[in-house]
Amino acid sequence: MIDFGKLAGQNIVDLVPYKPGKPIKELERELGIKNSVKLASNENPVGCSPKATQAIIDLFPEISRYPYGDAFYLRQTVADFYNVSGDKLLFGTGSNEIIELAIRTFLSDGEHVLSPAPSFSVYGIISQAAGKGCKWVPVKEGFKFDFEALAEAIDEKTRMIFLANPNNPTGEYFTQSEITDFMKKVPEDVIVVMDEAYIEYADAPDFPDTLAMLDDYKNMFIMRTFSKAYGLASVRAGYVIACEEAIDMMNRVRQPFNTNMLAQVAAKAAMEDSDHLAKVLKENKDGKEYLYSQFEKLSLKYIPTQANFILVNVKDGEKVFNELLKEGVIVRYLGPGLAEWIRVSVGTMKENEIFINKLQKVTDNL
Amino acid sequence: MIDFGKLAGQNIVDLVPYKPGKPIKELERELGIKNSVKLASNENPVGCSPKATQAIIDLFPEISRYPYGDAFYLRQTVADFYNVSGDKLLFGTGSNEIIELAIRTFLSDGEHVLSPAPSFSVYGIISQAAGKGCKWVPVKEGFKFDFEALAEAIDEKTRMIFLANPNNPTGEYFTQSEITDFMKKVPEDVIVVMDEAYIEYADAPDFPDTLAMLDDYKNMFIMRTFSKAYGLASVRAGYVIACEEAIDMMNRVRQPFNTNMLAQVAAKAAMEDSDHLAKVLKENKDGKEYLYSQFEKLSLKYIPTQANFILVNVKDGEKVFNELLKEGVIVRYLGPGLAEWIRVSVGTMKENEIFINKLQKVTDNL
Repeated sequence: MIDFGKLAGQNIVDLVPYKPGKPIKELERELGIKNSVKLASNENPVGCSPKATQAIIDLFPEISRYPYGDAFYLRQTVADFYNVSGDKLLFGTGSNEIIELAIRTFLSDGEHVLSPAPSFSVYGIISQAAGKGCKWVPVKEGFKFDFEALAEAIDEKTRMIFLANPNNPTGEYFTQSEITDFMKKVPEDVIVVMDEAYIEYADAPDFPDTLAMLDDYKNMFIMRTFSKAYGLASVRAGYVIACEEAIDMMNRVRQPFNTNMLAQVAAKAAMEDSDHLAKVLKENKDGKEYLYSQFEKLSLKYIPTQANFILVNVKDGEKVFNELLKEGVIVRYLGPGLAEWIRVSVGTMKENEIFINKLQKVTDNL
Repeated sequence: MIDFGKLAGQNIVDLVPYKPGKPIKELERELGIKNSVKLASNENPVGCSPKATQAIIDLFPEISRYPYGDAFYLRQTVADFYNVSGDKLLFGTGSNEIIELAIRTFLSDGEHVLSPAPSFSVYGIISQAAGKGCKWVPVKEGFKFDFEALAEAIDEKTRMIFLANPNNPTGEYFTQSEITDFMKKVPEDVIVVMDEAYIEYADAPDFPDTLAMLDDYKNMFIMRTFSKAYGLASVRAGYVIACEEAIDMMNRVRQPFNTNMLAQVAAKAAMEDSDHLAKVLKENKDGKEYLYSQFEKLSLKYIPTQANFILVNVKDGEKVFNELLKEGVIVRYLGPGLAEWIRVSVGTMKENEIFINKLQKVTDNL
């Protein structure tokens, strides 16, 4: 009898298999609810630019052709947008694939990545799947980044540091001076990956301009995505900006047709539509301020956010999550480490109002 | 100075970086040609089912949502189509990602994969990127599979065998009795991956029914794709059928949102449109027979194909490839190992005629 667990190895057997969320339609059927509101995955409630969907339709005559292996036209657009060389860009199936490529390309056996905790759990999952370690360094009181502890945690086996800014799931951020000071302490052969999935939403005046640091720090990678503010989570398009030498190595590991062609044309069109992006950001800002004011009315503590989601203290996160689910509102409970909290994505104003109504009902009954 | 090659390791440094083909528009501009005919990548000249593009349009209201992590509805459709359990299926960004997942999940350091040569070069590239080996076992005279040599090549470090059937780039196939005999000789902890990317085109009466063998051989994986006969190469959707235990392990390594949602809905609709598939297969059969007859007129030796491409002996493959390129016809030259040959995809009848006209012109001038 063949033992696939033995062939896969203990690091993979030990991985908690991903439990996919059911399609909303299936969930509604099970729970006997209708018109549920999903504020769980930090998706863009406005949707993508209509120019992006038009670009997909325009591609249909070529749908049976393979994608451009180097994302030729999308690369030009992103390079122009940031005024960087196209050789500094690599595209992938969302940021997830970029994280995976970076780890698979640059980590040797026995090496590990480092990340603040709480942060994006996927850094740890991908490291483990690749047979590498992940060390988590707790944030400070109030979810502030602890750069001193991060610097101290670096040892000779640390190869990569993931810094989500704004951080997920807290919405917290670190400043320009914090990252500038930190980079000076990081050995040059330790790669610092700035996960800026939510950067378009960030409006703090001291939010770091990492692009301006790229020339000084060849060990800095900047990861961004079309899944959030650009509203293209379903098509899967993320990218990394880094020095040419690093991109060249990751390109060798990358599958040539990893970025599907619909993603390429949609992402290009989305990035060119600054009006739509402005609309998305305005909607998020309005929703954020509405939610802040309602949380204050309900005397609920929350973490001011630089992203499109808010961490809010509801005393018993798991219970409130479950009660909200019964009311047809899906938010995110983040586990025992954040037992008192739920994370809610900023929705449309109508969705935000439904959420607040149901939250009030649920917390009143606790 | 940070040395990214050192961090990446010699196996990655030694990889020949993928050289992406230029977009046709760019190529035409460089060569000063127009209306070029691309018969290089075994793409479907008919295109996909109109129901597949409609399914993509229908998804637009949900385009900013993450894909179903388990390809919920597509999984149901494929499971029903083959009458297998959905737990035996895993989807990915084309077959390439499936190959990568299989290798990354089941190969340990020092182990290698085995494949006939010539075959799909990607088996070797992915193995090397993952720090694993690939041993190639030459085919026999006339590109026939040499199962005796394959069985002899298996040693204690062989973990996986890739068998493309029909084979790429030859179009050759192996029979039911050949694979049945071979499987009996393969140790049960050596995984045999049947790469059946082109199976829909195969019409030989003794072509293997591998699905019927799955219950007997838990070490058999069957890999199929929507990139070829279903005409969806641009959206990236491939899958593997294997026993539940093997799928479970690969699922742990797989990124949850690896299969984009447009691919999921398009593939589902494509698989449900048997009329369109029949049209594609008819067009391919007609084109194949036309090309056979023309090659015979031109006294060019060719390999009868079970796929949507034909290997044809033009004496000097590289030269004919280059001359055809100048005439605006793009085919595939496969390197010094197949120096006398080119591989041409079956196109629309109009494309086939243009190809034959240009081929005649080019070979006359040799």
